[in-house]
Amino acid sequence: MRELLRVSAPVDLGAIDPRSTPGLPEATAGEHRKGWAREQVALLGAGLGRRQEMLYATAKAAQERPGPADRPAGRVLLVLQAMDCGGKDGTIKRVAGAMNPLGLHIRSFGPPTPEELRHDFLWRVRRALPPPGYVGIFNRSHYEDVLVARVASLVPEAVWRARYDEINDFERELTDAGVTLVKVLLHISYAEQGARLLERLDDPRKHWKYNPSDIDARARWDDYQAAYAEALSRCATDAAPWFVVPADRKWYRDWAVAHLLKETFDTLALGYPAANFDLGRERERLRAGEAGAGGTGEMNGR
Amino acid sequence: MRELLRVSAPVDLGAIDPRSTPGLPEATAGEHRKGWAREQVALLGAGLGRRQEMLYATAKAAQERPGPADRPAGRVLLVLQAMDCGGKDGTIKRVAGAMNPLGLHIRSFGPPTPEELRHDFLWRVRRALPPPGYVGIFNRSHYEDVLVARVASLVPEAVWRARYDEINDFERELTDAGVTLVKVLLHISYAEQGARLLERLDDPRKHWKYNPSDIDARARWDDYQAAYAEALSRCATDAAPWFVVPADRKWYRDWAVAHLLKETFDTLALGYPAANFDLGRERERLRAGEAGAGGTGEMNGR
Repeated sequence: MRELLRVSAPVDLGAIDPRSTPGLPEATAGEHRKGWAREQVALLGAGLGRRQEMLYATAKAAQERPGPADRPAGRVLLVLQAMDCGGKDGTIKRVAGAMNPLGLHIRSFGPPTPEELRHDFLWRVRRALPPPGYVGIFNRSHYEDVLVARVASLVPEAVWRARYDEINDFERELTDAGVTLVKVLLHISYAEQGARLLERLDDPRKHWKYNPSDIDARARWDDYQAAYAEALSRCATDAAPWFVVPADRKWYRDWAVAHLLKETFDTLALGYPAANFDLGRERERLRAGEAGAGGTGEMNGR
Repeated sequence: MRELLRVSAPVDLGAIDPRSTPGLPEATAGEHRKGWAREQVALLGAGLGRRQEMLYATAKAAQERPGPADRPAGRVLLVLQAMDCGGKDGTIKRVAGAMNPLGLHIRSFGPPTPEELRHDFLWRVRRALPPPGYVGIFNRSHYEDVLVARVASLVPEAVWRARYDEINDFERELTDAGVTLVKVLLHISYAEQGARLLERLDDPRKHWKYNPSDIDARARWDDYQAAYAEALSRCATDAAPWFVVPADRKWYRDWAVAHLLKETFDTLALGYPAANFDLGRERERLRAGEAGAGGTGEMNGR
């Protein structure tokens, strides 16, 4: 999937069908493929949970035995971008929901606060990075600063244009520090966005997700697609690749993102760290505690 | 379960059997009750996820329409305490894992850092509170400051003794600000702790969880139980009750904590907020966008 979904400059989003399902095994064609994909996400999730635990355990061991390390302790950072209704929240619920919440570090980026605006655009992003051993997820990210900032003219063109290089430098710094970046655009169609917005209007349980400004952004669809295409073209680097996941079909989207994460973990060659204590001695100490506690079967009320 | 598991002063932990299963329906007796409980946790988890979404949606709506509110926006804070191997991590994995990770705010408290030590013991706790709309989970908490701080004599007795009142004041402040506290002691036996420590020594995949200092704390078991009993006795208030969950059986522990959370959500009378926009007008705007986009079925590549 990393090969199939990865994009490189020049990125032409119009050539990627949001309803397509690249990489889906052919044998799963037909009606039951949706159920198949949902099952796979659960299975992949269990595997992701194990890998996440190894990542966490390795970072913890490194922290307890600091020293000259071959390479810095690992962390994984999934960056999710999409148009409104693109499925960022749903992807997090389904894919991250299959992992252990203790090892997740999820951060959402909204419009910058007054304090954030007083700093460089990467300031709030640096503060939101996952600690070593964690799987971070960015629900929107620093890419908004070359997307909405560009389309809505929040800053002059010279400012957002300079940000492509700044982002590449920043991401290079991250990967040098042991962060494995997985940048994903959930790619939906204009028609699908319209259908999902209508669903939010029709279902009282979804009104809270609707914002009238979504329609304003929708009116600028082509401008946003152009901004995305340029951002992906300029910032798809070897160190920090961009993946485009066709996202009109939610079950495919979840399966594809889970698969991307699994393949990413596989590149890390994870394992459990060796014990940093004397096993025999600790067994001895534990046994001594049993004896000292006054016999067997009497411990409950102790 | 809130009635059954709630404790009040004087708390006698020795009188609570860590292998007991209060509140478990009698019909589930026998071999299959473990499977039954696991299924129930999944079902309860789905319900918790819905309630969590309502909590989040309500807070979001309140934020968008600030004004004189009847009461502050809600948040729930689960405080988990236990002896080593008591099952805090496992409970979070199972119970929180059934909820939507986007709405969770999990914070673990380890030994205080030098910076944290330069501040009042509640400083780092205040910084870790969940924002409105979130379900927070404290993996250990400010109670460590009357537990390990007391048993290991990290501060003079006068200092930790004063903390009971300080904690009660702090928690009263939180509940006044709309935080619903659920404080849970996962209550395991000395024997069960020994078995779990041995498991960590025997399984190379679990070595990373083992710390030789666990045996030192185990040697002070009675002192810790006394410290817990006094902390619960002094800080079980009407505003912020303490619950003791027998935790030798993991499946019961998870079921009981999920149930406590569900009953806690039920006291909040949650619902979805009303739309804060004109539904008819928004449908109109959405329809106009469809027309302006140049016909039907042509949107994919747009």
